[in-house]
Amino acid sequence: MEFKVIFLGTAGGVPTKYRSLPCIVFRRGGEVFVFDCGEGAQRQFIISGIGFPSKFRIFISHLHGDHLFGLPGLLQTMSLMGRSDPVEIYGPRGIINFLEALKETVGLNLTFNLDVNEVYDGLILESDEYIIHSVLTEHSIPCLAYSFEEKPKPGRFNPDKALKLGVPKGPLWKKLQKGFSVRNIRGEIIFPEDVLGPPRRGVKVVYSGDTRPCSSLVELARNADMLIHEATFDDSLKGRAVSEGHSTASEAATIALKAGVKLLVLTHISARYCLNDNILLEQAKKIFRNVIIAQDFMTVKIFPKFEVETIGSKS
Amino acid sequence: MEFKVIFLGTAGGVPTKYRSLPCIVFRRGGEVFVFDCGEGAQRQFIISGIGFPSKFRIFISHLHGDHLFGLPGLLQTMSLMGRSDPVEIYGPRGIINFLEALKETVGLNLTFNLDVNEVYDGLILESDEYIIHSVLTEHSIPCLAYSFEEKPKPGRFNPDKALKLGVPKGPLWKKLQKGFSVRNIRGEIIFPEDVLGPPRRGVKVVYSGDTRPCSSLVELARNADMLIHEATFDDSLKGRAVSEGHSTASEAATIALKAGVKLLVLTHISARYCLNDNILLEQAKKIFRNVIIAQDFMTVKIFPKFEVETIGSKS
Repeated sequence: MEFKVIFLGTAGGVPTKYRSLPCIVFRRGGEVFVFDCGEGAQRQFIISGIGFPSKFRIFISHLHGDHLFGLPGLLQTMSLMGRSDPVEIYGPRGIINFLEALKETVGLNLTFNLDVNEVYDGLILESDEYIIHSVLTEHSIPCLAYSFEEKPKPGRFNPDKALKLGVPKGPLWKKLQKGFSVRNIRGEIIFPEDVLGPPRRGVKVVYSGDTRPCSSLVELARNADMLIHEATFDDSLKGRAVSEGHSTASEAATIALKAGVKLLVLTHISARYCLNDNILLEQAKKIFRNVIIAQDFMTVKIFPKFEVETIGSKS
Repeated sequence: MEFKVIFLGTAGGVPTKYRSLPCIVFRRGGEVFVFDCGEGAQRQFIISGIGFPSKFRIFISHLHGDHLFGLPGLLQTMSLMGRSDPVEIYGPRGIINFLEALKETVGLNLTFNLDVNEVYDGLILESDEYIIHSVLTEHSIPCLAYSFEEKPKPGRFNPDKALKLGVPKGPLWKKLQKGFSVRNIRGEIIFPEDVLGPPRRGVKVVYSGDTRPCSSLVELARNADMLIHEATFDDSLKGRAVSEGHSTASEAATIALKAGVKLLVLTHISARYCLNDNILLEQAKKIFRNVIIAQDFMTVKIFPKFEVETIGSKS
């Protein structure tokens, strides 16, 4: 199933002309998974043309305004568009109070149900096809990193083998592809592994939220296709990264190296690199070669083919 | 003193690629007056280059999210920039609860004091040089329109007359200009009106907020230089305007005509006119000739010279 990541907001704490506040969307087939919802998210959604499909889930890393203050407006806009399907929200403790307080003070008047879940370390969500985990990271307030991982897909079906083993084309092939044994024309049992290649690993993408480099994140990101890691500062400002609970470009690259990911994407780019973010890239590249810097509306297709492109633009 | 109006957000309830949510800035000399603060206001501020001067006041028309949800982020960003001067906020009943609820649930951590005022009909603010009034308009929830009016300025000083009357150039001229009587070289009393032209009226600008056409607004806008009036719908959707507490383009124009304003600016433009808002202009022009449609980053200079320009842009 097609899987792509769309960067809607890639700024640090303050937006710039070129970067909106943090918001990253995973789109898998018809499902949308939103990671963080900084102010401006709804407008970025509209500009991007992603849409608001019926399966729409939002994951908040932590309750700092730059990751959160786009949530009420996004929900209201989906209401104004007449949404009826529920929206699931996941986030750290306190997110329920935040939304309740808005309802009580200014009303949200939603046309759909909100299913808000306060979550911790561990398993967040599981379906037949994918699983979402989180770990606590090291920030100035409780912050969650999230991993999205597809379950292994069955190996590739080999039609020649099936025919040789006496299984004719038709419903029996489908059964085998789905992992069930069948009987061939001679009444013998044919196992799926007789006609399927080795199971194929699914897509795995991890988003760091805001954090100092931390080992829990290395574990979470192990062998991921893509690690989206904050890099608020360049290395010369490591002192500020330490005191404010953020990472430098080199630190993000070191996490990617340790975790053995395929691609590192740096995000949460401070406004001080508004006109030139090359320094972050250069510092990271010295440690981990396969790294890029997120830009607003940049899209990374991960399946079926790994490629980076930009969709839409502000101009 | 230079007076200009900068339109930072001109959308209706939902933003578009071209229009951010409602936010209009009056800049008078070094002072900034912000009218409504829809989501995205902080980023529009940053793109516009208006800045965040020490005298910074925010006026909220009503507590619907599209006019309000940019407020927390704007305050946080001013904090991140190290602001120490207080910020004054004016808005209808409930705005204190809204801000308190945010402080309690997610914290705002401001580096400056907030002076939040719940206001009603009548006088909102008065200085030596200007006065701000509000009236209640007709919307689905309590909503305030605001007028900003400079007090009359002293008439133009006539140096030839002063010399003829025996008042030499110097400090005595300043005194006369400030409205005080002085003695001339012959000891005679010279009154300010002997050397000043008639008092000059100051700038007057009125912002409607969201509203059905209403007579209180006609009174408030009487003889204004500029009326900024919402025009959420074109005339064919008058039924929706009535049921949702909004105005059509023709209705806004009728208010401008009755109030005898110089220029009408239509704003709060629905996303349905995203690609073509000409219909609003055409309908309004049939009733009131001097009308334009607000665009994001459009600036109207009102003093010293009336002119419309755009500053900055998204591209």
